[in-house]
Amino acid sequence: MEEPPLYKFGPYKIDAREVFHATPLSYAMVNLRPLLPGHVLVCPKRVVKRFADLSSDETSDLWVTAKEVGAKLEQYHKASSITFAIQDGPQAGQTVAHVHIHVIPRKKGDFEKNDEIYDAIDVKVKEKEMKEKLDLDVERKDRSMEEMAHEATEYLMYF
Amino acid sequence: MEEPPLYKFGPYKIDAREVFHATPLSYAMVNLRPLLPGHVLVCPKRVVKRFADLSSDETSDLWVTAKEVGAKLEQYHKASSITFAIQDGPQAGQTVAHVHIHVIPRKKGDFEKNDEIYDAIDVKVKEKEMKEKLDLDVERKDRSMEEMAHEATEYLMYF
Repeated sequence: MEEPPLYKFGPYKIDAREVFHATPLSYAMVNLRPLLPGHVLVCPKRVVKRFADLSSDETSDLWVTAKEVGAKLEQYHKASSITFAIQDGPQAGQTVAHVHIHVIPRKKGDFEKNDEIYDAIDVKVKEKEMKEKLDLDVERKDRSMEEMAHEATEYLMYF
Repeated sequence: MEEPPLYKFGPYKIDAREVFHATPLSYAMVNLRPLLPGHVLVCPKRVVKRFADLSSDETSDLWVTAKEVGAKLEQYHKASSITFAIQDGPQAGQTVAHVHIHVIPRKKGDFEKNDEIYDAIDVKVKEKEMKEKLDLDVERKDRSMEEMAHEATEYLMYF
């Protein structure tokens, strides 16, 4: 009989090599398509779609974990700030139906306009001319397992 | 002797009429410049600059509060999703040096391109032609105290 996966991310089975930190209720994994160096995801172990589905214990554990992950990755990547975000539901940009916190170390100049969003219609330029920046679930190039496992290993020693 | 303010937001004294929910460690207030209807801020009562400065108890209380606020404002505004974000530090867009969670009820079509960010340089159009969308601390028109107190009163009955 096949063992159930240790980590799930919505419908996806997560390879343990992608996970660099775990608590009784949460886990932190590297990102298939990081937006910036150190862009990782912190998730509850239980598969739930919306943030409101989490118990108080899960909510606390998730965010205490994200805080620790953020502080350590900021240091690791010699960053000076962090973007924390939950896209809670499809209309907020959520594409995987499993609560996840985006933790993104930030540096001066990492984005030309830091964190501004422009409406394509108002901007009146062709969509393909634009470079998407903070649509956190947007299509990006998939990384290999080796690449991800390597990053996870680098982070492991910080916990 | 003047009483110390009940609520502070970095260097600013917050009028209690703007606050629609409070716990022993956190408070939720309406926003001077909401990006969308129901865009509110949830803050720790203690003035701290960075998320990592919060104790575990403060972190838990802050996020359990934000979860409740989000769920109730989503219902109130007949929204279907929520954006939760902390701009943790200046390089993440933080302009007030006091930890605050942006809680933004989201609906289909509230932004033309939901949550995409474009780099002004890559877009190659003049900045003034663009409409800023998710730069959460960007300059927006200030609302009156009456307007804000009215909104806070509407929310009060939900808690």
